[in-house]
Amino acid sequence: MSGATTNAFAGTPEPPYYAVIFTTQRTEVDDGYGAMADFMVELASQQPGFLGVESVRDASGFGITVSYWASQEAIAAWREHAQHRVARDTGRKKWYERFETRVARVERMSGGP
Amino acid sequence: MSGATTNAFAGTPEPPYYAVIFTTQRTEVDDGYGAMADFMVELASQQPGFLGVESVRDASGFGITVSYWASQEAIAAWREHAQHRVARDTGRKKWYERFETRVARVERMSGGP
Repeated sequence: MSGATTNAFAGTPEPPYYAVIFTTQRTEVDDGYGAMADFMVELASQQPGFLGVESVRDASGFGITVSYWASQEAIAAWREHAQHRVARDTGRKKWYERFETRVARVERMSGGP
Repeated sequence: MSGATTNAFAGTPEPPYYAVIFTTQRTEVDDGYGAMADFMVELASQQPGFLGVESVRDASGFGITVSYWASQEAIAAWREHAQHRVARDTGRKKWYERFETRVARVERMSGGP
């Protein structure tokens, strides 16, 4: 898995499940960001209840990452994961100028073609 | 408002509210796409219950747009809007190689700095 830079659709099951919508504006600071972002996606994907992730960032540094989870409990456990906490603290201090996190319950899905 | 290409955080109220997560892979076909995308954001923002939108697409054509709405009824009304229907049909035929739409109820939000 090439991690946070993978542009791919998540193959989620039938709803209901949960989405964490993580909207971010990157700083200009690199300092290991790419490797850490990839590692976080890798680590998240190994957690119980992880269903998938979709992530995109443009050249201005604005990005949206949506991760999908089976339950609120799975999200809470991932939030408490030690390595995730460290990454989050570093993100807050160095990598993100601003971020917003929303937890939402997916109720319907449709797609195409 | 510069529309779908605006990289900006949505100033949403306290949850609960709804999110439409629209994940897309663009084709190589332009044919008015940018103008239509901007117009759709403009038009959506005039609908009752519209709370905001966050949108990002990278150079590969993969994009995530999340629009926020006060209620499921507001989402349903927007889905039935005549000009939105036309744009959606065109999107399906010309502009999107693939797309997924998820409707989710936002339950919690946090952010920073």
